[in-house]
Amino acid sequence: MFEKVLIANRGEIAIRIIQACRELGVTPVAIYSDTDENAKHVRLADEAYNVGGSVARKSYLDGETIIDTAERADAGAIHPGYGFLAENADFARAVEESECTWVGPPSDIMEQFGEKTQARNLMAETGVPIVPGTTDSIESADAVREFGDEHGFPVAIKAAGGGGGRGMRVVERDDDIDSEFEEARQEAEAYFSNPDVYVERFLDDPKHIEVQVLADEHGNVRHLGERDCSTQRRQQKLIEETPSPALDDEQRAALCETARQGVAEAGYVNAGTVEFLYQDGEYYFIEVNARIQVEHTVSEAVTGIDIVKWQLRIAAGEELDFDQSAVEPRDAAIEFRINAEDPSEGFEPMPGTIESYRPPRGIGIRVDDGVDEGDDIAPFYDSMFGKFVVTGQTREEAIERSKRALDETTIEGVPTTIPFHQQVLGDEQFRRAEHSTTYVEEQLDLE
Amino acid sequence: MFEKVLIANRGEIAIRIIQACRELGVTPVAIYSDTDENAKHVRLADEAYNVGGSVARKSYLDGETIIDTAERADAGAIHPGYGFLAENADFARAVEESECTWVGPPSDIMEQFGEKTQARNLMAETGVPIVPGTTDSIESADAVREFGDEHGFPVAIKAAGGGGGRGMRVVERDDDIDSEFEEARQEAEAYFSNPDVYVERFLDDPKHIEVQVLADEHGNVRHLGERDCSTQRRQQKLIEETPSPALDDEQRAALCETARQGVAEAGYVNAGTVEFLYQDGEYYFIEVNARIQVEHTVSEAVTGIDIVKWQLRIAAGEELDFDQSAVEPRDAAIEFRINAEDPSEGFEPMPGTIESYRPPRGIGIRVDDGVDEGDDIAPFYDSMFGKFVVTGQTREEAIERSKRALDETTIEGVPTTIPFHQQVLGDEQFRRAEHSTTYVEEQLDLE
Repeated sequence: MFEKVLIANRGEIAIRIIQACRELGVTPVAIYSDTDENAKHVRLADEAYNVGGSVARKSYLDGETIIDTAERADAGAIHPGYGFLAENADFARAVEESECTWVGPPSDIMEQFGEKTQARNLMAETGVPIVPGTTDSIESADAVREFGDEHGFPVAIKAAGGGGGRGMRVVERDDDIDSEFEEARQEAEAYFSNPDVYVERFLDDPKHIEVQVLADEHGNVRHLGERDCSTQRRQQKLIEETPSPALDDEQRAALCETARQGVAEAGYVNAGTVEFLYQDGEYYFIEVNARIQVEHTVSEAVTGIDIVKWQLRIAAGEELDFDQSAVEPRDAAIEFRINAEDPSEGFEPMPGTIESYRPPRGIGIRVDDGVDEGDDIAPFYDSMFGKFVVTGQTREEAIERSKRALDETTIEGVPTTIPFHQQVLGDEQFRRAEHSTTYVEEQLDLE
Repeated sequence: MFEKVLIANRGEIAIRIIQACRELGVTPVAIYSDTDENAKHVRLADEAYNVGGSVARKSYLDGETIIDTAERADAGAIHPGYGFLAENADFARAVEESECTWVGPPSDIMEQFGEKTQARNLMAETGVPIVPGTTDSIESADAVREFGDEHGFPVAIKAAGGGGGRGMRVVERDDDIDSEFEEARQEAEAYFSNPDVYVERFLDDPKHIEVQVLADEHGNVRHLGERDCSTQRRQQKLIEETPSPALDDEQRAALCETARQGVAEAGYVNAGTVEFLYQDGEYYFIEVNARIQVEHTVSEAVTGIDIVKWQLRIAAGEELDFDQSAVEPRDAAIEFRINAEDPSEGFEPMPGTIESYRPPRGIGIRVDDGVDEGDDIAPFYDSMFGKFVVTGQTREEAIERSKRALDETTIEGVPTTIPFHQQVLGDEQFRRAEHSTTYVEEQLDLE
């Protein structure tokens, strides 16, 4: 095991990694920006180094300074956390070429999974289902109709030359497909100087379900079950839970094994998440997140496995010491992201000083946070400053426990997402688990 | 389920019960002494009633006022917590005769188990092993020798007419048994005006191991595994853990099943703990604690079962909804009692104001407490104001995590037992689990 690890991050995930280091007997080394000089992650570390200015670009995103700092501190490895440089394959490669070990997948694997089309093709080759679509451009509206008849409506007509949803038309069987097809081609031409379009099944009510995997350098790959992250807003997850209430045991086993095999065949190493959309009993691969995720905590809660410690152990060359059959998820766990945001004002980030802070306590409660009472939430970084993870024997018990936990929490000085979470916990659609990724934006009446 | 439950207690256990009430949709009603007017358990309750003066005798031990208060508040039940009136069979009977339900074993069962000799005989009849001894008084030193040859030395010669260790002589085979026997008789005569003595096996290096049971009114009795509470000082437990590192799986199953059957045959109802001493591969019944125990938390950590909620559900007439085979303890959990005491001054209680308080966070940490920053620890009650429960996949991981957790904790204003816990965690005898109930007083070199 490394003697020292530099943590190229801040906030709650830096502290999570500090805790993992301590439990492994590793000395954690923190970095900080000017703003973060007295931040909690700095207070908890043994050593801390200033790496630059307050804006991330001048500090937490300055890879060169970070690697220099790690070498200067004699750190044996660099753990990137999530965000910032965590998915930057160039940074990973620079670390690999330095005196430090990269705690994450090898840079060439990161590169493969970082390019989303390449990742889709890679996973499709291993037999992981992807959203049905034409790979070549289509020539006529009839081809759209044929595709829809085969794969189901609605379908999306998308520009072959670009992305980001620009020029995309979503059509039902009874829409005027001929004119929509023509307009899609015209928009594609206008946006991308290329009129070619292709067609894909459009999932209008999907759940977001993802599978946590761990893979070592010796060819052992395990999954730690799935997480349901359907409670999200503009692709930002707000509540994550496991097990997914949408799956029965057979579907769960199939999905998790598909993900496990997919990354195994792709030669993946270290912790990762295979993300899927799920609708009408079918799941479709979206992407692999080649890093630790915010919501890894719920998988830890139900498996007992410390994922961050395994990231470090795998990076140090250790072998996974448990079989797939030894991973027996138990209970139900829900994570609530505590953001300094005003849910009634479109979740606008509201930096400020935490004047009073009493997180919940007692049975089934895990608190991860990046602040203490009196600390400032800086405007420069992510507005998430904590996570409450609540475990119960059943989803229902976890929900009742979550209500209790959020009710007994006090946070003053900044608005938070707690009122939003309380509203969701009282909402029948969430309680019946009939919510999809469109739930927060389209179906929940935000107070 | 009851609409309202009055909690006849204070501090962390009152808050534990408030949390259980909330998760069941029950309105918790607090009581408080003059000193506790602004205590945390009062702040967290929906309703709170003053029941008298600061000394316990005038408030938390005033059963009549408490029952009056419960009736006045329209509480459907009274939960006594631990300590105070929790093991007072007369109080239990008075509650049974009031308009409220008693959350605990029926008063006649409490009475049977409250009288320790009766409890021993009762359990011995059900086949639970008790410390070998003569039930009748012995007439000669030869009888002591014979007993020792059969059951092993050392043995204790005890006064038949009294207790409390007075007049007890512990003798080895090669001691002068004849003179010790005569002196024991003379001391017995002096103390109790009765020279009769009996002989019992003396356990000089026992571990304290106890089994948590749950029994409903419908004849279902389950055990939730065992706890090892060998780290204690003058019968006060300081650290409790599960599973017991002293037992292998076969011994564990036998011990737990023996305890389960014992209370089942005795007609026990509600939560309880069957306590044993364990030495040289043999276990001997000591007593049943007919109430919730401080250390119930470690059993909750490894089984996922909420024992306090089950106390309420059983009192409301519900049936245990799980089989014994569904109780599958997983992982290892250790509880640390956080007392306002100075371990370097003989664990002297040191009341005062909690000036700064940051309990540990993160994976595997449960915090139960009765105070917030700024609160006073009153001199009138138990000096324990919190419990940290740490879970890991193995005892070793739980120990490393515990060190991390205690290191990151800040408590200012009163001395605490944290330095003691840190010392124990670093001590090889504890780490090898070679400690018995004599460990803290006789073997640990308290700094």
